Amino acid sequence: MTTESTYGEPARHGSARICRGCWDQMHMPIPIGGPLALPFRAFGITRSKMNPDICTICERSFQYVKKQRQITVDATILFADIRGFTDLSERIEAVRLTEIVSLFQDRCAQAIWAHDGIVNKQMGDGLMAIFNFPITRKDHAAAAILAAQAIQRNCAAALNSLAPDAAPGRPLGVGVGIHSGEVQIGEFSSFRSDFTAIGGVVNQAARLESQAAAGEILLSAETAAMAAALIAGAEERTLTLKGIEQPVRAHVLVKR
Amino acid sequence: MTTESTYGEPARHGSARICRGCWDQMHMPIPIGGPLALPFRAFGITRSKMNPDICTICERSFQYVKKQRQITVDATILFADIRGFTDLSERIEAVRLTEIVSLFQDRCAQAIWAHDGIVNKQMGDGLMAIFNFPITRKDHAAAAILAAQAIQRNCAAALNSLAPDAAPGRPLGVGVGIHSGEVQIGEFSSFRSDFTAIGGVVNQAARLESQAAAGEILLSAETAAMAAALIAGAEERTLTLKGIEQPVRAHVLVKR
Repeated sequence: MTTESTYGEPARHGSARICRGCWDQMHMPIPIGGPLALPFRAFGITRSKMNPDICTICERSFQYVKKQRQITVDATILFADIRGFTDLSERIEAVRLTEIVSLFQDRCAQAIWAHDGIVNKQMGDGLMAIFNFPITRKDHAAAAILAAQAIQRNCAAALNSLAPDAAPGRPLGVGVGIHSGEVQIGEFSSFRSDFTAIGGVVNQAARLESQAAAGEILLSAETAAMAAALIAGAEERTLTLKGIEQPVRAHVLVKR
Repeated sequence: MTTESTYGEPARHGSARICRGCWDQMHMPIPIGGPLALPFRAFGITRSKMNPDICTICERSFQYVKKQRQITVDATILFADIRGFTDLSERIEAVRLTEIVSLFQDRCAQAIWAHDGIVNKQMGDGLMAIFNFPITRKDHAAAAILAAQAIQRNCAAALNSLAPDAAPGRPLGVGVGIHSGEVQIGEFSSFRSDFTAIGGVVNQAARLESQAAAGEILLSAETAAMAAALIAGAEERTLTLKGIEQPVRAHVLVKR
């Protein structure tokens, strides 16, 4: 029922005929493609904006799906952000800024979906993705790393072709931070119905991202240990992260 | 048609019978309360999660409302975040963390709605609000400051009652950053239908927030100049903000 994927051979996304999230979480076949999806569409059940292989039930009815207000899940969290954007946004015309943000968001989403992650939050020139919920993947750390490498591969040249004259000597690039561990997933506000992830793991992933230079992917030791084959030869770096007392060991993957 | 509000006398929110956003942007009366709202509800047009006084047309059909992919708007942007949350999230039990985030998000939303702002983005223990779109308010800088003061008033004691033993000597608190000026508002991703704001003003508001200590509201000089009556006697501080070349003069309002 679900699409299989292996390292380097990403699943084709957006082609699922039943919601992969509802299947993985409830073993319930909710049609989202083909003629069987039509009656569901009439009730507002369509492909989710977070990932086109899941449906709006997964996205907006967390408590129905999980029968709880929140759950603890082993997951990998990825943050990505355009480096140099604040500086650029002071000097560039509005239309160009829009094109840059749209291109970044779209290319990142394609890379994340190709590895079964969801784009949980978009914040201007940044985003947060979750791997292993609601589509389950035992190799969620590896999936996130492969998505990050695809982001780095697909963004840098395209971003700079949109802003060729923007920052002489300071090309645009993307910084990525990844961390794995237990997160709380649920609805954390009485007036929103979309779920999100919170917890120390989420905050540390965001902190790692904030320290990644253009072209860099910073992985926590926990993520690296789960995907050893992908990080062979990676540089290690000791970081002091805001709000985290102990220094953090990170692995650095650099766009080649 | 729209609710009037003056300094210190916030409009009652969630009570509008027609969408105040559609009215202010298109002079179109879209019923969202009372019996006239029922047929609209059948077509999925309900109160928005961003602000209950606007509707899902404003929220998700930006291009229909504005007939453009993006517009430039004079607005005030507010960021708020729980100080000490990363540190706390490493040590506290999951259920307690959830309660803290929910309380924070709900109290902030009430304060923002009471002053006609919208909660545009929620990111774990943080959020971004926009004032002057889609509900227009000439005094958007003052509205944002009053919302920030209500956030500070309503959050600190409540947060600490939820985490009394969390951080000895380091009580939880909220940091707020506010900046006003021209922002780009529109849909900046081909797969999401909710609008957001981007641009230098947005990024500078976020940078100000990141430097606000617990209990502090950091205002840019631009915001302060638009609401002189509210900032009399405020301390001034010169800040170096990441990604912004020139030092920035900020006014500091402290919770009393």
